Amino acid sequence: MPSFGPPVALARWGSFHVGGRLVPLAGKPIRELALSPGGVPARIDPNGTYLAGAMYAQYMIPAECRGRFPLLLWHGGGMTGACWETTPDGREGWQHFFLRRGWATYVSDAVERGRSGFPPYPDIFPGEPLFLPIENPWERFRIGEGPYGRKTQLPGNQFPADGENWKNFMRQVVPRFTTTDEWTLEAYLALLARVGPAIVLAHSQAGYFAWRVAQERPDLVKALVLLEPAAIGDPARVEALKTVPALALYGDFIVGDARWPAIRAKGLAFAEAVCAAGGNVAVVDLPARGIRGNSHMIMMDRNCEEVAALVQEWLAAREFWA
Amino acid sequence: MPSFGPPVALARWGSFHVGGRLVPLAGKPIRELALSPGGVPARIDPNGTYLAGAMYAQYMIPAECRGRFPLLLWHGGGMTGACWETTPDGREGWQHFFLRRGWATYVSDAVERGRSGFPPYPDIFPGEPLFLPIENPWERFRIGEGPYGRKTQLPGNQFPADGENWKNFMRQVVPRFTTTDEWTLEAYLALLARVGPAIVLAHSQAGYFAWRVAQERPDLVKALVLLEPAAIGDPARVEALKTVPALALYGDFIVGDARWPAIRAKGLAFAEAVCAAGGNVAVVDLPARGIRGNSHMIMMDRNCEEVAALVQEWLAAREFWA
Repeated sequence: MPSFGPPVALARWGSFHVGGRLVPLAGKPIRELALSPGGVPARIDPNGTYLAGAMYAQYMIPAECRGRFPLLLWHGGGMTGACWETTPDGREGWQHFFLRRGWATYVSDAVERGRSGFPPYPDIFPGEPLFLPIENPWERFRIGEGPYGRKTQLPGNQFPADGENWKNFMRQVVPRFTTTDEWTLEAYLALLARVGPAIVLAHSQAGYFAWRVAQERPDLVKALVLLEPAAIGDPARVEALKTVPALALYGDFIVGDARWPAIRAKGLAFAEAVCAAGGNVAVVDLPARGIRGNSHMIMMDRNCEEVAALVQEWLAAREFWA
Repeated sequence: MPSFGPPVALARWGSFHVGGRLVPLAGKPIRELALSPGGVPARIDPNGTYLAGAMYAQYMIPAECRGRFPLLLWHGGGMTGACWETTPDGREGWQHFFLRRGWATYVSDAVERGRSGFPPYPDIFPGEPLFLPIENPWERFRIGEGPYGRKTQLPGNQFPADGENWKNFMRQVVPRFTTTDEWTLEAYLALLARVGPAIVLAHSQAGYFAWRVAQERPDLVKALVLLEPAAIGDPARVEALKTVPALALYGDFIVGDARWPAIRAKGLAFAEAVCAAGGNVAVVDLPARGIRGNSHMIMMDRNCEEVAALVQEWLAAREFWA
């Protein structure tokens, strides 16, 4: 049974939705539907106006605040904000780690994921959702040595995948579109406009949104922490990032992976371009710091507190925490 | 600007997913997809095993616990657990109300909603999601007098629908299936098995699940609070409910609505049958208690604290709170 830390007092907590657009839809058939067993049928006319592309965020503001700016936690593809709230083996998540250290945390669900919802598609959102069977992230997130059926983790792999844990992880995987980036970017900009100056901690797919949002609003993004960013910002606008210090972290098992050497190489080249334009991007390969065994899901790995401590140290050294 | 209450200390908080089944899927085409702009294409094989039907729950356990059992908050159709966390005009939600009074709260997302996610359909889940334009709940949730275009609320209606508020409400509406009741019931039973003896507070569609779950596990459901339940339990098993005290609340504007007179009449007949079998169901029409103007979204109405206080009083009178 995992242990939990001492109580924490919250000054405020709650949630809100931001952003989205009103989009009309017409030409669909009207239906009469019983929405509950034995219920009285309701007339559902799908024609009308949809509020599409809004985004959910939940905040917890500690009574003893030590972070100078709120910390926005942005999840990666296939996930929701739940990935920061726990680990597959039931330990405290990174949300706990940072809240316990006095950071105001905002955990959001990207557009079309989780509590953000999605409008009719392909009418309003183009494309369709992508679904992941339990076999897919086992290899793609650098957890298993070979296919899922072989049941062997990479040697020294820190992801808690034994027993019921892999199923616990897959329980929290949700469908995702691959065609909604502009909507998501717009919603993250709306989130930032609402919260005000903030530090963005982004994982995987959200690395792209974090870079892009910082390029749009360097006045509001005070720092970026990127956990294995899956893509880069706009290479034509690296100078927009020169006032935004960034820390990019990469885990283990990248050499030998089918895709991560190329993804990291692109990330490193972008970081160098930002630095050449006067910016400050620190890239840390965790194994080079002696932190070994990390999968792509760094915030859930058994050594995730050690990595969180490294992030905390980087933020504190930049005077974002007192 | 809404006001907030004093700080609250949490002994524990976090989330988990429960339930679900492993279901195989075959015969689908394999795709190569760039999951981020400029990203390295990934091979996505949708064939394999899906973890379908799991459910998300987030808990907050106050340091000073006064509720004898945890309070499970189950949302209605088209919503997620977010409906308990705030109101469209940014006030504190019912989750705050009960947590502040020392209840351990568990806010879940029903199967296929929000952070619970959904598997491929119609392959694994039958049917397809239902989407609601902003015009639909305006009438169906007893808020507007006539269609949305007329922009007139029912006289004395307490739902905060002015200004940006109706859009804020629609921002949190998500797609829902109408074909997944058995999956949802199974997941709620798994939630209860994990949490242990609890009090269930259910809105609208979840009224059906609450009655049914109490009929399956009267040992674990210590009491039911039903906010405008949209459907009833199994009429053949009313005697299973005789040890489960229940409070059912109905709002205003039911007379004159197209569906709610029939829905309430069914609810009242079921409550009478439970009472005839030795049970204890209190039915409260809020207007008869002098609480007027409530829409179907009682927990968001401007007078929602007054209704929450009535629930709190009922629970305290039954020695569930000390």
